[in-house]
Amino acid sequence: MHVNLDEMAQLEQRYRAHFINSLGGFKSVVMLGTQSLQGHTNLAIFSSFFHLGANPALCGLIVRPDNGNRHTLNNIMATDLYTINHVHEAIYQQAHQTSASYAVAQSEFAATGLGEEWLDGFFAPFVRESRVKMAVQLAQRIDLQVNDTILLIGKILDVYLPDAIVGSDGFVDLEAAGTLTLSGLDSYHHTQKIARLSYAKPDAPLAVIGS
Amino acid sequence: MHVNLDEMAQLEQRYRAHFINSLGGFKSVVMLGTQSLQGHTNLAIFSSFFHLGANPALCGLIVRPDNGNRHTLNNIMATDLYTINHVHEAIYQQAHQTSASYAVAQSEFAATGLGEEWLDGFFAPFVRESRVKMAVQLAQRIDLQVNDTILLIGKILDVYLPDAIVGSDGFVDLEAAGTLTLSGLDSYHHTQKIARLSYAKPDAPLAVIGS
Repeated sequence: MHVNLDEMAQLEQRYRAHFINSLGGFKSVVMLGTQSLQGHTNLAIFSSFFHLGANPALCGLIVRPDNGNRHTLNNIMATDLYTINHVHEAIYQQAHQTSASYAVAQSEFAATGLGEEWLDGFFAPFVRESRVKMAVQLAQRIDLQVNDTILLIGKILDVYLPDAIVGSDGFVDLEAAGTLTLSGLDSYHHTQKIARLSYAKPDAPLAVIGS
Repeated sequence: MHVNLDEMAQLEQRYRAHFINSLGGFKSVVMLGTQSLQGHTNLAIFSSFFHLGANPALCGLIVRPDNGNRHTLNNIMATDLYTINHVHEAIYQQAHQTSASYAVAQSEFAATGLGEEWLDGFFAPFVRESRVKMAVQLAQRIDLQVNDTILLIGKILDVYLPDAIVGSDGFVDLEAAGTLTLSGLDSYHHTQKIARLSYAKPDAPLAVIGS
């Protein structure tokens, strides 16, 4: 099948959203925890979280255009602080449910039954059930003029994860943690490792790491 | 395990790269095809490709700091055009091998045995073996001051994929296409679908879509 620019523009809106979104490939899926200055906690699922750099440890997140009613964005702009919480199979339906349009005063924690966890005095709540979680501070907001989406660049302040999933070379075995991946808008997947491959060099064959 | 900001800064460089990179979760993994104005083709693996918007169809890509020797970046800046090609199990080792530092005049297509494919007169080469591929035109370059990485925003011009993986609602079944996902710097994974979930509403239970 070949779909060109004109044909994409003519697709029915929901069809196009599913179709184009799927093309990005498998994505990270996390829950983002915040708290407003008024003390309301908020939890929201995002599929646009990505690694941006290791030193300093930075991460990126794309937020939809600001319509004035983006609770997560509002809380981050007011407080600079948020948490990132990975999603595994036991909580993926609750994670998905956080995307519903709850009122500001209604916390997605209470609505979904996920537990608020407060760690080391950090202002934003973590998800108790998550196995891999981070405290993040906003470093820069960049408004993308091409479509009014917003890139939030965050500095990773703290990382919490099980000892057993961290390898001797620093690799974190997310599959062992049960971390899921998302495709399109709504399809959740386990992973099954094929192999880790060695650092590639022009004139040397690749090796499988650790097996 | 709790790792704080000071401890992250003190990690050995390669350990830190593996550790921090893993925290982003499962990622898209694609090969980016370009051609220089001198006619040299280039193919490079990227794990930073992401969906940015459906109307118009936009995608993002993070490129490492410009050291003058980034062949993919140089070709995109000179020609504005590139291809995105998904990776499946039969070609993942070749895809990984494209990350080796080949000379400008040495094409990663020839070096890895992946096939150059020229579609509909587009200036940049596609990967013949890939099952999901896109022609993309640079829309905007944003240099990120926080760490000198570069965000390339691209407009999707053409999409090529098998008819059989496109569902009636536009969802593309990447798992059926064998598209892989990456974690950390070098770990390749299959996926296994759990479920698609319905659009979430505050006072309605979620439903599983299509089963």
